[in-house]
Amino acid sequence: MMDLQVYLSKKREIVDRALEALFPEPQGPASDVVRAMTYSVFAGGKRLRPILCIAGAETAGGESRHVLQAACALELIHTYSLIHDDLPVMDDDDLRRGKPTNHKVFGEAIALLAGDGLLTEAFCVLAGMPVPEGTPSTVLTRVIRWIAEAAGYSGMIGGQVADVQSEGAPPDAELVRFIHEHKTADLITVATVSGALLCGAEESAIRALSSYGRRIGLAFQISDDILNIEGDKQTLGKDVGSDEKRGKQTWPAVFGLEEAKRAQRDLVLEAVESLNPFDHRADPLRAIAMYIIERRK
Amino acid sequence: MMDLQVYLSKKREIVDRALEALFPEPQGPASDVVRAMTYSVFAGGKRLRPILCIAGAETAGGESRHVLQAACALELIHTYSLIHDDLPVMDDDDLRRGKPTNHKVFGEAIALLAGDGLLTEAFCVLAGMPVPEGTPSTVLTRVIRWIAEAAGYSGMIGGQVADVQSEGAPPDAELVRFIHEHKTADLITVATVSGALLCGAEESAIRALSSYGRRIGLAFQISDDILNIEGDKQTLGKDVGSDEKRGKQTWPAVFGLEEAKRAQRDLVLEAVESLNPFDHRADPLRAIAMYIIERRK
Repeated sequence: MMDLQVYLSKKREIVDRALEALFPEPQGPASDVVRAMTYSVFAGGKRLRPILCIAGAETAGGESRHVLQAACALELIHTYSLIHDDLPVMDDDDLRRGKPTNHKVFGEAIALLAGDGLLTEAFCVLAGMPVPEGTPSTVLTRVIRWIAEAAGYSGMIGGQVADVQSEGAPPDAELVRFIHEHKTADLITVATVSGALLCGAEESAIRALSSYGRRIGLAFQISDDILNIEGDKQTLGKDVGSDEKRGKQTWPAVFGLEEAKRAQRDLVLEAVESLNPFDHRADPLRAIAMYIIERRK
Repeated sequence: MMDLQVYLSKKREIVDRALEALFPEPQGPASDVVRAMTYSVFAGGKRLRPILCIAGAETAGGESRHVLQAACALELIHTYSLIHDDLPVMDDDDLRRGKPTNHKVFGEAIALLAGDGLLTEAFCVLAGMPVPEGTPSTVLTRVIRWIAEAAGYSGMIGGQVADVQSEGAPPDAELVRFIHEHKTADLITVATVSGALLCGAEESAIRALSSYGRRIGLAFQISDDILNIEGDKQTLGKDVGSDEKRGKQTWPAVFGLEEAKRAQRDLVLEAVESLNPFDHRADPLRAIAMYIIERRK
């Protein structure tokens, strides 16, 4: 059995170094927005999406270096979504990963623009990345399109809209599934798939990875819901109990805490099962799935 | 001499029809964001950037249909920037093109997400567009990268940051040039260039078009500054005099109104001169440059 913690910290370091290389020294009249962008990018994220992209690439026989820029782009998109979600007009959060949220440090105008900047930069990085040798260049535009769809109004943004608008509404099973699938699972799915696509994976492999991603994405959001009830504020670096206070649609709110835990376990097992077509190179993905059940932050 | 008004209205119609085809009927839990996106996209824009993209393509021997999706993507990016600029944390505008601004109709949370959605959709549309026959597919990723750069923190967003942060500061020639070049001219330049690039224009043609775009972009923003002083509120569909009230960095504020008018004329003449390498197929671009001096809205 592989040591997941070693794997994660090794990949996290590779991703962090690649992210650092993306940003220039802040200078000139617009330097504050670069400062604000890097503040949130280097605020201690787990790098789950980039690592899934890399692990997906490895499953298809590729390596980190083949997909690093796509991995970074996914983290930029994730970070932009957190900055905008934390704004007063949205969730109005003061703390994120134990640090003041972006607008608390840089003000709302710059935070808004920093989010816009990260989203835009993600596509700049994607479009400028070299395609691994042997992969047709049209694969890159397919990946860009898939990522944009997953992040857009029929994906992450759509989930966010439903999330914001359903605060305080009665618990609704169909709605919570819509929110979790789009707000969280869509980007996690495309993260897993994009690395493999760039490394020339066949359609059947992409289908298997997509099914894995969808399930761990949903499981990940359910575990977020559970941590918001049972987690430790210190470890999480954010407030606990906020979902209930706001009347958010969560799995525990709709189905109860025990059922949420069961759903999460079932999803993780199904996700691991989706990886049956793959050999040992999918072990990191298998281990990441199991880690979702155990995580404390 | 060509009839510019006929040309503009014909192209505007083609662009409007292509934009309409991009959006689905709003349905499901996230339908409000689609409604908000389309509200601003169809709020009566001049479609200047899409038309420049098409006119650039025609200059290079292409046709509207070859670059329509890129043209639409540019309008989506422009529209997202207006929605975010109008938000209370930014310029706090109630009126845009004579209609209530997005957040006035849909609320700030949905307006923020509608902007995010339009920006993301722009890259989805770009990455999914067919490349004109005979153009290598790597040109598309080059165009996507160039557009993302022009829209990002070293382009439009950078200009917006400087604009927001310099309100009330003493008039500064270097700063107003930075703001106008990045906030406005960068996207207008890439609009002009991208259509030609997609239609296989050579590097020397791209350089000429880029020089044209940079100059009319700057001239266009200066004419905006002038209209904010001398324009008619009814015709413009927005408040007049707001720049001075807010202490914005504008060309008239820094150099005086007469000098601003002279700079605008000089830039337009230089822009037209940049088109000397091209034949009659660049006539629409020539006419658009002249129109900037005469426009009333």
